[in-house]
Amino acid sequence: MFSYLKRILIGKPLKTLDESGQALTKFKALALLSSDALSSIAYGTEEILSVLIVLSAAATWYSIPIAGIVLVLLFAITVSYRQIIKAYPSGGGAYVVASKNWGTSAGLVAGGSLLVDYMLTVAVSVTSGTEAITSAIPALQKYHIAIAVLIVLGIMALNLRGLRESASFLTIPVYLFIVVISLMIVVGLYNIATGQVAYHAASAVGSAVPGMTFVIFLRALSSGSSSLTGVEAISNAVPNFKKPRRKNAAGTLAIMSLILASFFAGITFLAYYSGITPSSSQTVLSQIGVTIFGHGIFYYILQLSTALILAVAANTGFSAFPMLAYNLAKDKFMPHAYMDRGDRLGYSNGIISLAAGAIVLILIFGGQTGLLIPLYAIGVFVPFTLSQSGMIVHWKREGGKKWMINASANLLGALLSAVLVICLLFLHFSNVWPYFIVMPLLLRMFYKIRKHYDEVADQLRVIEKGKVNLHDYDGSTVIVLVSNVTQVTSGAINYARSIGDYVIAMHVSFDANPEKEHKTAMEFKAEYPDVRFIDIHSSYRSITNPTLRFCDVIARRAAERNYTTTVLVPQFVPRKPWQNILHNQTGLRLRASLNSRENIIVSTYNYHLK
Amino acid sequence: MFSYLKRILIGKPLKTLDESGQALTKFKALALLSSDALSSIAYGTEEILSVLIVLSAAATWYSIPIAGIVLVLLFAITVSYRQIIKAYPSGGGAYVVASKNWGTSAGLVAGGSLLVDYMLTVAVSVTSGTEAITSAIPALQKYHIAIAVLIVLGIMALNLRGLRESASFLTIPVYLFIVVISLMIVVGLYNIATGQVAYHAASAVGSAVPGMTFVIFLRALSSGSSSLTGVEAISNAVPNFKKPRRKNAAGTLAIMSLILASFFAGITFLAYYSGITPSSSQTVLSQIGVTIFGHGIFYYILQLSTALILAVAANTGFSAFPMLAYNLAKDKFMPHAYMDRGDRLGYSNGIISLAAGAIVLILIFGGQTGLLIPLYAIGVFVPFTLSQSGMIVHWKREGGKKWMINASANLLGALLSAVLVICLLFLHFSNVWPYFIVMPLLLRMFYKIRKHYDEVADQLRVIEKGKVNLHDYDGSTVIVLVSNVTQVTSGAINYARSIGDYVIAMHVSFDANPEKEHKTAMEFKAEYPDVRFIDIHSSYRSITNPTLRFCDVIARRAAERNYTTTVLVPQFVPRKPWQNILHNQTGLRLRASLNSRENIIVSTYNYHLK
Repeated sequence: MFSYLKRILIGKPLKTLDESGQALTKFKALALLSSDALSSIAYGTEEILSVLIVLSAAATWYSIPIAGIVLVLLFAITVSYRQIIKAYPSGGGAYVVASKNWGTSAGLVAGGSLLVDYMLTVAVSVTSGTEAITSAIPALQKYHIAIAVLIVLGIMALNLRGLRESASFLTIPVYLFIVVISLMIVVGLYNIATGQVAYHAASAVGSAVPGMTFVIFLRALSSGSSSLTGVEAISNAVPNFKKPRRKNAAGTLAIMSLILASFFAGITFLAYYSGITPSSSQTVLSQIGVTIFGHGIFYYILQLSTALILAVAANTGFSAFPMLAYNLAKDKFMPHAYMDRGDRLGYSNGIISLAAGAIVLILIFGGQTGLLIPLYAIGVFVPFTLSQSGMIVHWKREGGKKWMINASANLLGALLSAVLVICLLFLHFSNVWPYFIVMPLLLRMFYKIRKHYDEVADQLRVIEKGKVNLHDYDGSTVIVLVSNVTQVTSGAINYARSIGDYVIAMHVSFDANPEKEHKTAMEFKAEYPDVRFIDIHSSYRSITNPTLRFCDVIARRAAERNYTTTVLVPQFVPRKPWQNILHNQTGLRLRASLNSRENIIVSTYNYHLK
Repeated sequence: MFSYLKRILIGKPLKTLDESGQALTKFKALALLSSDALSSIAYGTEEILSVLIVLSAAATWYSIPIAGIVLVLLFAITVSYRQIIKAYPSGGGAYVVASKNWGTSAGLVAGGSLLVDYMLTVAVSVTSGTEAITSAIPALQKYHIAIAVLIVLGIMALNLRGLRESASFLTIPVYLFIVVISLMIVVGLYNIATGQVAYHAASAVGSAVPGMTFVIFLRALSSGSSSLTGVEAISNAVPNFKKPRRKNAAGTLAIMSLILASFFAGITFLAYYSGITPSSSQTVLSQIGVTIFGHGIFYYILQLSTALILAVAANTGFSAFPMLAYNLAKDKFMPHAYMDRGDRLGYSNGIISLAAGAIVLILIFGGQTGLLIPLYAIGVFVPFTLSQSGMIVHWKREGGKKWMINASANLLGALLSAVLVICLLFLHFSNVWPYFIVMPLLLRMFYKIRKHYDEVADQLRVIEKGKVNLHDYDGSTVIVLVSNVTQVTSGAINYARSIGDYVIAMHVSFDANPEKEHKTAMEFKAEYPDVRFIDIHSSYRSITNPTLRFCDVIARRAAERNYTTTVLVPQFVPRKPWQNILHNQTGLRLRASLNSRENIIVSTYNYHLK
């Protein structure tokens, strides 16, 4: 039943050798690797305006200079990521670059940040996509959390089926989005030029705004920096490009940054010119769409393509998180389970953990993109800072004539990222503080896991080649736990005699009525006169403690005789899983506590119910 | 760690013989068994007014005649429960009475209703108690769901510790409540008599109300019938009374009904006279308290004692539910686990299930008493109807001269309860429909569980005395699962040789790299040249399926040789529980699927990590 369902949802298993690489053309790479960056224009401008509007509508003109600075930042970060492409053609994720150049701890900070950040990528993209949907269909507004959760579960299911980041159909939403947004900006600017869109800006650029401070300016700027998230994706995927890899990757990065810059600039300008301000029921992008297209077909295509590119952006998290978790697990910083591949070659545990984390984030933050963004941004810019500054170390170590020139680009990137981190920390503290609780906990967890695996490996190592600790026992003692005398008992006794040289049956009774108490003993002795039977009375209705005590005594005696000790716990295997709740609770508890004994082997005698 | 925490929260275990009966005096019984009934005045009047106010404030005068009818109902139900006390001195719960007189199905309907109803008792009492608190301290209003959940958890913890329904300190809140409410009614009536409270009634009794219909009247009446819940408690507890039991119980029931009647009448009158209408921020009882006492110390005592008696009422659910679950489990309609007693002699599983159910109800209904009441009422009156009508059957069977007289009282009770059920069904359908979904499911569950246990019992029965199916095996085959060659391997091999006549080691490899693939095989053969080693290649990265297939083959061969088959699965036992997540996932999956084989015994070799 379960496996049938799983087969339908997940598909049939794939062989390991079915995995095959596929080199990306620039055209395809642009679509597949830029969804995260391009989709961030769906909320970037809105984030800037959301901060400014708190002061006054007049303050919104500041979005223009702020957008200008964001574009400068984008340029700097693009240049420094081109350096990373140059230096790490095998894919320079922040975890790798920071580990190699700054050491393990910095690498783990970057890795931990990214783990959380991929969850936030999914959460932000999906909630923002949900907002695109509810902007177009306001009736769905009240279900927005449920919609977001369903989208996450849907993308998770696709990934468990083995949706690859490289699936060709994923290019469609991205190019659709590029076409629609280009169209919107061109039509918008044309309308403005021809005077069909009235000038509605709340205040002219440069007009004095009472109450405007540098702090508010920085707050808005750091919120707007969320438009820069996702730029790193291309530098992580250099090995997937067609040859010449570095050149193609660097070229693609440049094209992507250009598109991102023009979209971001265009949208911010249109929002300013039309005097659009954030509203809780409709996104800024949706308002711009209505202003330009009206409520026609183009508007709905705009909303649909926005939702779709955000879904594709969320999907990039589902490619990146399991790989990072795999790398961390391979380095023994995360549980080995993240290295297990599922039936369809995906790292199922990573995929499921990511979906669970994203859903928890969506629920905690009530599905509100605006609340998630600052946390998302800090999670992006901390690894940015670490990998960019790591690159300085890299260039210095590499030496060469031009190392100072190469390093200076990364120095700029590192400084800008660091400033953004500091701004976010001080100006959005009420939103980003969880980062500073989660990160130390994650780091501690990484190190504890690593330490544990290291200790276990030490302990397990076979002492010396050829000197294995083989030991010949003289026999084995088997204790059969008996609750009452039934068919199960005879099966268990028969099996026990096949493996044991000495078989004891044991029963715990706790009936206050002495006559009833000895009923099992009498029945057993009548049926199996040859098997030793021990009846133990428990005053505390506990079966576990008397059983443990008894087994300890027997195990000690067995050891004296150079025997092993096995405890055989009978268990019912019902035909249907729900029936398990009707049986075996006692057996389960007994096995759990017997597992605490090093010198006792716990064996389960399965009795299948018909 | 866990057991230490448990010890602190739950206390140290008690012996079975520590349980002792304790006969109840009338004084104590009144307090302990009437909390459920008396506490219902905290919401009874409010429920009537809530229905009427929807029409208009003028309609609230109808609360007076409706209260009159509720009092008549109370009288009739009291008389018929005195009959049950007479007939079932050993305690006549609805499950017992309905089962004995109408047969199993009716008994199960009553039992199922009550199971759900005890959850509702807890949910209603706790949310109503929370409203008493938030009425007095409005700042807590926004936390009302959290408060309600915490109260449920608190009462659950007390009951897991072994708080008995008979604990003497529980009498204090009940008598405090009786004293405070009496005082309030007396002072209120005195103030009215002396003209200190102005006449604020929205309309005089008997004035015409536009739009008033018989349906609305019945709706209000059926809502008001929630004041009658809890009347049955005394009839269930006859064996706990001091001798002469029936007389004492019947007397206590009469006193309780008298107090309930006068309180209900007084509160309804005071609410009417002062023109109090339900409000979402303050209960009706709290408003009456403010009118009479002002915001002084007496008002806060009133609210406190209301909250406390409601907590005691919730606690009665915690005594009744586990007992009912125990009885149903004894009759094999519920899992045996409900018969297990915890360390402190309480039926822990019942207590925890009840708390979980109540919390789910509180969350589903947003902690709103008004939404829970109709469901609560129908869950009370269905068993009322079944047990009262069952009593008619009882008297008829008993015969005697006066059976018609005895039966007529129960007939009246049964008819009234049935009419209330029908009113609730038709007039509050939007609130009570879940009852008609849950009940059939519960019944189906009861019967499925019973059928399963019966089938298992048949299957397990030892065929014939003295003809036990003993079988002598000629030996045993042991398969040791090996993931890599470590200390664990040697321990497992040593143990396997002590119990097995034929030992095979087995390894599943799925590395695409053939050199790595055979590494384990080479290492193993170097260390244990004498042990047969089988290396199986899996193309699908699945360990489970190839292992199962291999073990099946070996088990078949073993059976041919009259050998048993044991599969030894090594398992790490880490020092700290959290470390389990780092190990054993594969072993767990393997054991789970090997348990599906009837002819294979699964044994766990525990390797303790240091």
